[in-house]
Amino acid sequence: MRPRRVDQNPILTPASISASHPDLHVVGVFNPAVTEHEGEVLLLLRVAEAARAGADGEITAPVYDAERGQLEVHRWPRGTKDLDATDPRTVTVDGRTWLTSLSHLRIARSRDGIHFEVERTPALFPATPYESFGVEDPRITLLDGTYWINYTAVSPLGIATALASTTDFRTFHRHGIIFPPNNRDVTIFPDRIDGRYVALHRPMPEGIGHPAMWAASSADLISWGDHRLVATAREGSWDDAKIGGGAVPWRVRADGRDAWLAVYHGVTRSPMTYALGALLLDARDPSRVLARSREPILSPETPYEREGFFGGVVFTCGLIADGDRVRIYYGAADGVTAAADLSLEEILAGMASP
Amino acid sequence: MRPRRVDQNPILTPASISASHPDLHVVGVFNPAVTEHEGEVLLLLRVAEAARAGADGEITAPVYDAERGQLEVHRWPRGTKDLDATDPRTVTVDGRTWLTSLSHLRIARSRDGIHFEVERTPALFPATPYESFGVEDPRITLLDGTYWINYTAVSPLGIATALASTTDFRTFHRHGIIFPPNNRDVTIFPDRIDGRYVALHRPMPEGIGHPAMWAASSADLISWGDHRLVATAREGSWDDAKIGGGAVPWRVRADGRDAWLAVYHGVTRSPMTYALGALLLDARDPSRVLARSREPILSPETPYEREGFFGGVVFTCGLIADGDRVRIYYGAADGVTAAADLSLEEILAGMASP
Repeated sequence: MRPRRVDQNPILTPASISASHPDLHVVGVFNPAVTEHEGEVLLLLRVAEAARAGADGEITAPVYDAERGQLEVHRWPRGTKDLDATDPRTVTVDGRTWLTSLSHLRIARSRDGIHFEVERTPALFPATPYESFGVEDPRITLLDGTYWINYTAVSPLGIATALASTTDFRTFHRHGIIFPPNNRDVTIFPDRIDGRYVALHRPMPEGIGHPAMWAASSADLISWGDHRLVATAREGSWDDAKIGGGAVPWRVRADGRDAWLAVYHGVTRSPMTYALGALLLDARDPSRVLARSREPILSPETPYEREGFFGGVVFTCGLIADGDRVRIYYGAADGVTAAADLSLEEILAGMASP
Repeated sequence: MRPRRVDQNPILTPASISASHPDLHVVGVFNPAVTEHEGEVLLLLRVAEAARAGADGEITAPVYDAERGQLEVHRWPRGTKDLDATDPRTVTVDGRTWLTSLSHLRIARSRDGIHFEVERTPALFPATPYESFGVEDPRITLLDGTYWINYTAVSPLGIATALASTTDFRTFHRHGIIFPPNNRDVTIFPDRIDGRYVALHRPMPEGIGHPAMWAASSADLISWGDHRLVATAREGSWDDAKIGGGAVPWRVRADGRDAWLAVYHGVTRSPMTYALGALLLDARDPSRVLARSREPILSPETPYEREGFFGGVVFTCGLIADGDRVRIYYGAADGVTAAADLSLEEILAGMASP
């Protein structure tokens, strides 16, 4: 597999983006949902913002207080007792965990798929008690003329998946929580199967059970059932620690038959690395895995992928497939957005029966 | 609150039950679902079985292998490196957790609600890969002439909630996973609200988020959506560590208005104790809590509640409400089944606005 990263990478960085609030500054612009709209490539970016630094070395956590309808910044002096900030993404104090940045979703548009104009204001900003720690990692699926946007809703209640919709990317409707916590990395298929909508989701059990990819189906995109296991992490492989959905699956022909191709992310335990691979799923029963990438199709290799806010990460929420060319948009190091072109034929050639 | 425990308590013990398999012996009969059927009180008991002891002090974990369709017993000599058996319910080896007992569901019937005849064979035994560690803690809801049974399906994939149904308690139909892992303590309401079925469920996020009670609704009992928070653990209260659904809610009149009463379990952090309380929920929007028990309505006090397989536990999956009398059936110390009569008026008098 030889992914061809676009020359302009990273195509979007925090410097491309204005902050949404005077108390915040942008620390990441990454993990965009991808679709085509009115002849343009449209990205729905995750924009992560941190509180402007106060006193020296202070740890901060911006939170949206849905009851009061306002932003609040929690602050802890460095050296606070029982404070754990070893993971740059979180701060844990007295057993309670906060995020060091608050994410919202922002639209960017491009004629050529590489040079993007970013809107100055958020498309979806945290608004409910389920979103007080942010809205993250969206995916867009076009169904029946409506763009359905699922995204991660994070709060002290957990990490859940919520649904919104739009027809014009100006007005958005929220449809509430579709997968209760902890469950993220949901991808809704762009077509019904046997009359029902289908999604991959990633429950995150701990203790008994581990994060794994499941499929579910729905009559209305709101209520989901018929939950079935799809795939787990693989011991001894590049995806040995954890896996989850990535880009919205799309229809392909493989070995003369119809199937779905789902680009997913896999985490290598040591050193912790997020890479991308693919699952080939049965056309009629997408909980059945026909084949799976033996090796990653994209791994963190460049400086902007290996170093940054959270280094060693490539993570996708969307792509554009055009014949053999698969243009994957992805977040790199939880900080910037990049793009790479892959060959569908090469992706398929790198897969083996599970 | 003065619960009146029935004189015959515990009304069912492991001695009342024959093992389902020659390699197993019964260690617990507890947490029964409760309904009335053909003029009898019917319990659907959780029967926990452990492997017959082999070599001295050996730790064992019985597992149902769904692919081979047979029972397997995993064995570890005591002193095995990296083995943790401090919790009698589980054994953790090399970061993987197993259960020391395998549960199935068994029917018991009674004319007087106190003396029960237990069937000799399981009603629902583990049968799928989602149930390889057992089926536990059922609840029965009668809707449209069908008895719907939700139960906890435990496996290395996590702790999920599955659905089955029956009309005669002889033939059972499985309907798959309705709440993906980790999610247990589901109670389905015995009536539609605004045309939709409603359930309480208890997602179990870790890290960010804590186990809490949520509500969801469904058009068909299979697909669930519109997930909303109902209640969390309360700092500084008897339910400060964890809460979850208990008995199937029922309609009551309180302060001159209709509402739902849901008996739930709450866990006190130190010393760890499982007790029961009640939530009064809005008749039309059961995600809205009108009132909540200030103190437990039933706490582990008797020897069979305080000592046993897992002491300090009273846990209910069902009750029979008859006017002011509320007969709660409950598991005690994860080992035996007991019953206690409470007064609805007293339960309501012990509640306060949340």
